[in-house]
Amino acid sequence: MEELRVFCPATIANISCGFDVLGVALDSVGDEMVIRKTPKKGIFITKLEGQDLPMETERNVAGVAGLALLNESDYDGGFEIEIYKNIKAGSGIGSSAASSTGAVWAMNQLLGKPFTTSKLVEFAMEGERLASGVAHADNVAPALFGGFTLVRSYEPLDIIPINSPSELFATVIHPQIEIKTSDSRKILKTHITLKEGIKQWGNLGGLIAGLFTEDYDLIGRSLEDHIVEPIRSILIPGFNDVKKGALASGALGCGISGSGPSIFAFSKGEATAKKVALSMKEVYEKIGIDHDVHISKINTEGIKEI
Amino acid sequence: MEELRVFCPATIANISCGFDVLGVALDSVGDEMVIRKTPKKGIFITKLEGQDLPMETERNVAGVAGLALLNESDYDGGFEIEIYKNIKAGSGIGSSAASSTGAVWAMNQLLGKPFTTSKLVEFAMEGERLASGVAHADNVAPALFGGFTLVRSYEPLDIIPINSPSELFATVIHPQIEIKTSDSRKILKTHITLKEGIKQWGNLGGLIAGLFTEDYDLIGRSLEDHIVEPIRSILIPGFNDVKKGALASGALGCGISGSGPSIFAFSKGEATAKKVALSMKEVYEKIGIDHDVHISKINTEGIKEI
Repeated sequence: MEELRVFCPATIANISCGFDVLGVALDSVGDEMVIRKTPKKGIFITKLEGQDLPMETERNVAGVAGLALLNESDYDGGFEIEIYKNIKAGSGIGSSAASSTGAVWAMNQLLGKPFTTSKLVEFAMEGERLASGVAHADNVAPALFGGFTLVRSYEPLDIIPINSPSELFATVIHPQIEIKTSDSRKILKTHITLKEGIKQWGNLGGLIAGLFTEDYDLIGRSLEDHIVEPIRSILIPGFNDVKKGALASGALGCGISGSGPSIFAFSKGEATAKKVALSMKEVYEKIGIDHDVHISKINTEGIKEI
Repeated sequence: MEELRVFCPATIANISCGFDVLGVALDSVGDEMVIRKTPKKGIFITKLEGQDLPMETERNVAGVAGLALLNESDYDGGFEIEIYKNIKAGSGIGSSAASSTGAVWAMNQLLGKPFTTSKLVEFAMEGERLASGVAHADNVAPALFGGFTLVRSYEPLDIIPINSPSELFATVIHPQIEIKTSDSRKILKTHITLKEGIKQWGNLGGLIAGLFTEDYDLIGRSLEDHIVEPIRSILIPGFNDVKKGALASGALGCGISGSGPSIFAFSKGEATAKKVALSMKEVYEKIGIDHDVHISKINTEGIKEI
């Protein structure tokens, strides 16, 4: 096999009480990439459509992630990469993660799978480091493993796949305003009260239990974040109205996707997810902000060949 | 039915990363109680053996919990309570919780089960309020539900039963020194860093996932507490050696039970749990502190009639 075309899913990270640890892969929104073996050593971005992003290997997240893999492999050739972006950069649904993971996943396939999925997470994290300054794993892990994934620990890296309830759907709205990840990190408090911490890990425990037992009510009750959401949501115009509307339309829970500005909601069943989408759109139509809406079931496969 | 004899299990709360939210019921150690209907309205502690504790209803945790139930019931009689303590007060394995829960569980049975198990948790919490000044639920919930339980939230109270892996055994050692719950609460920091919080909820997520998937390695990796254990363990002589020895003997993890001084370890299989017990004993024999050791499988039933 010399060439592979792959679908690279969008992902939601920082799922409410799962701040910095819990992410999930989406099904109906993602990029496409073509990865091709080439005799010349190196990573070469030969095409980039859909977004205005750097094509130099060292400045492109797929390039950097690809180099990380290449440096640890005994393959003495290289790869050409074509990237067809559907996910908007800076939207908060894992645009950089889709590119980084797509590159390393396809390369690993083309080389006969010398690396484990966890090792691919490490390579892809180098793309995240380039994109945001922090080598976080909460978008790249679900893109590579599929479904919900927990980053239990970074030292050592420990990714735990979590069950994805079959009737769970995500609705994501992307209001087209710009928030830089670095800015939205800066406004976070460095300290929290022990009491807030206990509340958060109680909810995360409930959410993980709800995902395993497919208890949709429990999932909904646990989707709370009293620590980060109250601060970051200030940067997202209309957030409170979107959340209120989503819950009133039957969503189990609603929060900030990644570091925003996208907002996600989870629902039981596609019909509710569609109602939630309408209520979300309404808010941004009223305040006049351009927006995209995605409705997706949970993608339990992650990246796949197409 | 006029009278019931019940077994009231000891419990481990504050399970490492599950500080204030996660508890578990034990099988081989617990109190016995006899609860008897009486025409006279009120709660009467008629016998108390094994420990020197107050017998006045208002000063006894079983009395107070029983009154909380009686006040919400339409029963116009009362109950006599006999308490046969095996769990030492102040040992950190839920002595007060055993008495509070035993009383309300048996009364509910004798009255034809007018109250849900969650409601019984609320009544029993009044006993905890008397014992420690805080109406916590992390011992009474596992005593009443059995197995592992998560206190997701206090407002409203939301108890989530968590799967108990079948080969999981607990070893508990009680070094006979006195630590007051109120003292061990006082030394806690009121604030933690966001980074410490993230580490803790990553671990709790991993622990809950490990309990549901019966992944003993994951349970072991997740049994960490970087927040409370480093502070509270200072109050427990020999703690570091006990923990080191337990892990070296094959324990999955080891931590402080409740607010101490008891120390628990979880192991896969009874043989390992016994080896862990020997290594724990050795430490206290060397430093000359009297101690009790318990080895127990997880009690998935909770309180039961005997």
